[in-house]
Formats: sequence, structure tokens, C-alpha cells
Amino acid sequence: MKKKLSGFPEYLPGERIIEQQVLASLQHTFELHGFGSIETRAVESMESLTRKGEIDKEVYVVQRLHAPEGSQAELGLHFDLTVPFARYVLEYAGHLEFPFRRYQIQKAWRGERPQEGRYREFLQADVDIVGQGELAAHHDVELPLVTLDALERLHTDFGIPPVTMRVNNRKLSEGFYRGLGVADPMAVLQRVDKLDKFGPEAVRQSLADDLGMSAVAIDACLQLASIKTDDTAFVAQVRALGVTHELLDTGLAELAAVIEQVAAEVPGRIVADLSVARGLDYYTGTVYETSMAGLESLGSISSGGRYDSLATEGKNTYPGVGLSIGVSRILYPLLGKGVLVPSRIVPTCVLVAVDAEETRTASNQLAARLRARGIPTEVSPDAAKYGKQIKYADRRGIPYVWFGDSVKDIRSGEQVSADPDSWEPSPADWWPIPIRKDESA
Amino acid sequence: MKKKLSGFPEYLPGERIIEQQVLASLQHTFELHGFGSIETRAVESMESLTRKGEIDKEVYVVQRLHAPEGSQAELGLHFDLTVPFARYVLEYAGHLEFPFRRYQIQKAWRGERPQEGRYREFLQADVDIVGQGELAAHHDVELPLVTLDALERLHTDFGIPPVTMRVNNRKLSEGFYRGLGVADPMAVLQRVDKLDKFGPEAVRQSLADDLGMSAVAIDACLQLASIKTDDTAFVAQVRALGVTHELLDTGLAELAAVIEQVAAEVPGRIVADLSVARGLDYYTGTVYETSMAGLESLGSISSGGRYDSLATEGKNTYPGVGLSIGVSRILYPLLGKGVLVPSRIVPTCVLVAVDAEETRTASNQLAARLRARGIPTEVSPDAAKYGKQIKYADRRGIPYVWFGDSVKDIRSGEQVSADPDSWEPSPADWWPIPIRKDESA
Repeated sequence: MKKKLSGFPEYLPGERIIEQQVLASLQHTFELHGFGSIETRAVESMESLTRKGEIDKEVYVVQRLHAPEGSQAELGLHFDLTVPFARYVLEYAGHLEFPFRRYQIQKAWRGERPQEGRYREFLQADVDIVGQGELAAHHDVELPLVTLDALERLHTDFGIPPVTMRVNNRKLSEGFYRGLGVADPMAVLQRVDKLDKFGPEAVRQSLADDLGMSAVAIDACLQLASIKTDDTAFVAQVRALGVTHELLDTGLAELAAVIEQVAAEVPGRIVADLSVARGLDYYTGTVYETSMAGLESLGSISSGGRYDSLATEGKNTYPGVGLSIGVSRILYPLLGKGVLVPSRIVPTCVLVAVDAEETRTASNQLAARLRARGIPTEVSPDAAKYGKQIKYADRRGIPYVWFGDSVKDIRSGEQVSADPDSWEPSPADWWPIPIRKDESA
Repeated sequence: MKKKLSGFPEYLPGERIIEQQVLASLQHTFELHGFGSIETRAVESMESLTRKGEIDKEVYVVQRLHAPEGSQAELGLHFDLTVPFARYVLEYAGHLEFPFRRYQIQKAWRGERPQEGRYREFLQADVDIVGQGELAAHHDVELPLVTLDALERLHTDFGIPPVTMRVNNRKLSEGFYRGLGVADPMAVLQRVDKLDKFGPEAVRQSLADDLGMSAVAIDACLQLASIKTDDTAFVAQVRALGVTHELLDTGLAELAAVIEQVAAEVPGRIVADLSVARGLDYYTGTVYETSMAGLESLGSISSGGRYDSLATEGKNTYPGVGLSIGVSRILYPLLGKGVLVPSRIVPTCVLVAVDAEETRTASNQLAARLRARGIPTEVSPDAAKYGKQIKYADRRGIPYVWFGDSVKDIRSGEQVSADPDSWEPSPADWWPIPIRKDESA
């Protein structure tokens, strides 16, 4: 019971205040853009969880303790919010309006080994648009705009580092590989995806040994992956490599549209990066990855892409485009290191002192009048000496203590007579606010 | 994939809007009373989950799919928020301020057979105060006041039925049984707890057959359980049964204080009901149960009590008192039957029309200006005929469509010229609001 469970981070109450405010901010931004919330159950069928190749080893199986001996486990905890969303869309399609705009902020679970930025239980904030049968290309522009708006607000309001979103397009890569004569472009993509992890020499080796590619073709692939521009200059650089294919043309045009239109509305936050691959195989067009300035080692804190065939049933297909923000990955390091702290560790703004247990009811009634005006208030648990009651407030960061008909700011010591039906705390004291520790020194 | 998973309710986007607003309301009330939020991980050790007697059959075990063959499952999903809270208090005691006031709104899981009001995955909202070593009796008054405040706000703002909280005290029952000469008062309590379920004859039989109690003693127990008053009149009624015991005196005094003080602040919502027992064995004093008017068959929608020994470690004990609100039990029937609906099924207040794909950027920029002023806005996904764009808004209940330099209320058809930097929707249209269906006819 004493040993902490590795990979299952939990917050102290003060840290949780920041997390709550960050989640409220994300929710507000998504809703301002007309996305509605859904929540799905924590469990999915093992069948749908193990459909994709790479990930099945990480699933947590769920079974009743007293399930009949030898019975097959049929349920597992979801490891992302995309598989449950696809199931939700199919299950409730008849009740949804398409294109369907949803966000979803929930925990997910993976049994993988914990390390920095990777947890066994973690919080994701996903935002997707899904169409029925078709979905217009301009949503590939809209989704990064919504996500960058959300992350920019976290930067402004919480001091989260600024981000860079790196974008590529699967059609561009696949068309390029096909133009080179590669038979299995996905196999190339999966190896190029490891460039960051293993470096160019290992990838070169793997492309030669596993796929039998020529040195010239490998060079072209690595040159493609090295292209990175913050405008549409990447188009000319790809053309200069001399490869042609119809799918490459489509990919170049789609990526150019995304970069151009996003950069026009949010300058300095988006780049075309042709090394971005994304491991999961359901993406079919635009793919996104995002890093925080100075915290690149954490990996991508917001990833996603366009999928043309995630959910299919009979004649109905549901193409979509979405991004997922790794809330735990962003917040846990900042909160754990105490970089981001709340102005106090409780919601309480006013502590109403108690003279003696016999007058507790009067203190309760005064507190109720403050609460009726939206001021978070608690009543001292103990009719102790005033010094002890002030200490109670001080240890929690509660700024005001109410004595009889006056209120004391315990930071300045200033005490003024006050009417509970009209007195107001200063706006910055009303609720806890986030403070960047390096700024508050 | 098509078959719904029984016992795991999910909401449609419109229903989820109501749930979100109800949760925000609960959160607001708890924070106004100075309770801070925590969240605990979804899993606990099987050891702590199976410690209590009756409930272990309902635990969901969690194990990695590729856990080594034959390895013991060590984790399970929590079945309530009390066991995780007790573990959290012990684990982080050195970082918490006591008395510690926390609320916790999370899902819990039980493998039991689903039925009305009982789900396998359900949402609870718990509120507790925990002391270190000791906790004053007045918190037994504070907790029902906080909970009734929260439920009253749901009644006022969402039309949730008014509630009645029924209160008893374990010391009262145990003292009474001991005064009757009963050796194992818990055994009597567990049987009296089944009065609602099996009726007085079955309970009488069980007390006689299992515990060998005399007819006179059984009569006294059933008479005690039949006492129910909305003031402190219960004290005289218990005294009239002629049983005496020191613990009975303590219980009567504690219960009288709770009834008197709560009724004084919230008239008509609390009664002393000496049949209330609560199955779980960790309560040691006051116990609470709550029913909604007209929906008594759903069972208790908010239960809890005082516990003097939930969490103990070495010399430290952590007595507490808390209540749990069954959010799923309250909401799912009302939302499922369409009694409570949102004024629209999306957050969007304004749809900005698009003339032609070439002018989409202008529409995007106009939408951004409205969002910058906090107005939830989306841009039409399709540069179709205006009639089709209006239909898009109408199907979702979006009240306004913006065309060029004018805005149309699509309900009244009224169209006025408007400036995106100053126009405001009517307050009732800004965000979706809850509507009681029987009132909106």
C-alpha cells in the first residue's frame, strides 16, 4: 500500500487545481470552435482493441474477479480515444449529425513500461471531425487551427512553452516512394519513422537489408525526409529530387494548402516536415506532430491526421481528421517539477473565524451569504485562538479571514470593516490562479 | 461491435451537454464550500479492493494482455471512490493539510448484474472531510448541508426532483441493540438493513433463526426501525421503548444535533429515519441516505456517513465524514427518457455562411472575431445554397446564421445587419441551456 504504483501519476490538490483549469481552457476553446463533448466507456471489446498490429501487447484486459473458470476475457481498457470514437460513431450513427464535430477528454491506459512522458494511465484531449461518406479537405486546415488555438491559450494563460506543429502528408511520401518504384511504401514509411530514434545510418541499413532498396533510392528517401520548411518552399525542394507520381502531386498540393492557410492565420507555429510519418497505419493523408520549445525530448504532445477509412460499416464509410493533445505528457513534468503552481492549494477565498462553538451557526450563516455571491468560503473547523485560525488559513494560502464585522487580508495584515452582502475580494484572489514559478520569485 | 454493452451507459452529444453542466454545477457548489478536487488512478491493489466482505465478487480485475503466464492479477478497477481516497490519504498524508476537504468526481466499476439505477460503469461525486487523529462532530452537520446545497441547485437549475435525506446513527442502533442484550449488534444491523428489500416478516424470521433473538427483542428492533420524524421528536419515541445504554445516549444526542441544525438551515429536506443502516461496515456514527421525490424506486442517490477508522497507519488514524452523489443514477433515467434536454445539441451559437470556397478564409476570419469575444462559432462546412446552410444550422439547433454583414435568427427569420466586433446573441442563446421537457411544450 505504501509503494507508489509506477506509471500511474496522481496529483496533489494544488497540482490538480492547475490541471482542472487547463482542462477547462481546452474545453472552452473546443466549444468556441463548435465541437461538442462525448465520453465513451473505459472498456472496448478485445476484438476492436487488438485489430491494429503494433499495439496489442500493451492492452489491459478487464475481467470480473468471479468470472467462470477458463472464460475468455472479452473486454479491455481503451489505449487511446480513437478506437472508442470509431466504435461510438458506428454505434450511434443514426443519432448523430454529420459532419460530426466532437472533442473527448478522458484517460487511456497502456501496459507499456513507464518512462518520462509515457505513463500507464494518461489523460488525452482529442478533437475530430468525421463525415459520412465524404469530408472536405478544408477540415485538414481547420483541425490544426483549433489545436493551435487551444495550445496558444495554454501558453498565454499558463506559461506552457510555445509549440511547433510539424506536418506531412502520407500521399506525398507514398507517391514519392511509388515514383521510385517501391512496391511496399508502408514498409519504407515505418522505417523512415524511426529516423529520430535510430538515426539515418540505421534506417539506411534497414531499407537496404530488409527491403533490398538501391543506394540511389535510399538516398532519395532520406533526402525527402530531410526537407523542412516553414512555408511552401518544400514543394520546389521535392520537385528538385526529380521523382514524379500522380499521388505525389496530390500530396504536395494538399500539404501546401495546409501550410499556407494555417501559417496565414497563426504565423510561426507550423512547418512542413517531410520526416513526419506517424506509426499507426490508419492515416491516409495529412499527418501532424507537435513539440514544445525546449521540451522536444518529451516527444510529440499533439499528434493526429486524416483517416479515410477508420470506421466502415457496409456501404457507409466515415472519413475524418483529428488531433490528440497529450495532457499528461504536457502537464505532469511541469507540475511535478513545481514550475507551474496555483496561487493557493484550496478553492477557499475566505475563512470565517469562529469565536466559540456556540456561535458556529452565526459563522455558518455569514459564510452562506458570501457563497450566495459566488465567493468560495469555509468556516474555521476549530474555535481556537485567532492566531491559530489565521495559521489554518495561511497554511492553505487562503487570503482572507473574516472576524465578526471585519475582514483581514492575512498577507498584508490589513483589516477593514466589511458587509458580507457587498464586500468583494480582489479579482486575482477570487479563485486560485496559475503562477509560473520562475516569474513569481 | 453492433451489440450494446449492457451496464455501460453512454450519452449522445446533447445528453452529454446536460451531464457536463450538472458536473460543473456540483463542482461549483463543492468549491464554494472550500472543497478541493482530487482524482485517483482507476486501479487499486486487489488487496485493498477485496478487504471489505460483501463486495469482492463485483471487482473487475485488470491485467496486461501479455502478462507472464500464471501471474497473479494484482490490480483491479475501483468500485467506489472511498477505498481510493483512503489509500490516497495514507500515501500523500505528508503533503496534505488536515482537516482535508476534498471532492472527487470519477467513474467507478462493478461487475454486478445491470438493472435500473445500477450500472457496471457509473459516475460518482464524493465529498469528504478527513482529520488526522480527530475530527469535530460539527462536520456531521456540514456534510449534509454541502450535499443538500448541491442537490438543491440541481433542482433549481435543472429540474431534478427535490430530495429527502434520511439520517440515522450507528451508535444509536448499536447502543439500542446492546441495551437489549444483543452480543453481535452488526449482525442485527445487517438484517435490519434488508427491511426495504425483504419486508418485516423476513427480517423477523432471520433475526430469530440466525441470531436466536427473543420475540420481545425483535419487536423492539423493528419498532426502533419504524421511527421516522422530521424533527428531534424521535428522541422521545426511542426513550419510550424503555431501552437504556450509554452508547444509545451518545447516538441520540449526535443524531438530534444533526437533524436540528440541518433542518434549521435547510427546512424540509432532512428526516431522522432509524431504519437507515447502510450495508458497508466502516461507518461508526452518522449515516445518510437520500431519495428523489417520485423516484424512490431508484434507491438512494446520495449516501454516506461518519467513519472513525477507514484509514489507519501505525499510530495515525484518519477519521472522516462524507457523502457520495450517484450522478449516473440521478441523470441516466432523466436523460434516457428525454425529460431533460439541451436547448441545442452543439455548443455552436453562430454558423458563419460561406459564399464560395474561395471566400472561406474571410468566413474563418469573421468566425475568429466572434470567438475572440467568447461566442461559440463554426463556419459552414459547405459553400452550398444558403437554404442548405440554414438547414445545417437548424438540424443542430444553432440559432444564428451569419451572412456577409448581417445575422439571421433562423427561428424567427429576422435578419439584421451586424458588426462581428459588437453584436451579441441574447443571453439565453449564448450557450446551450437545460430544458425540462414537460415545461417546454
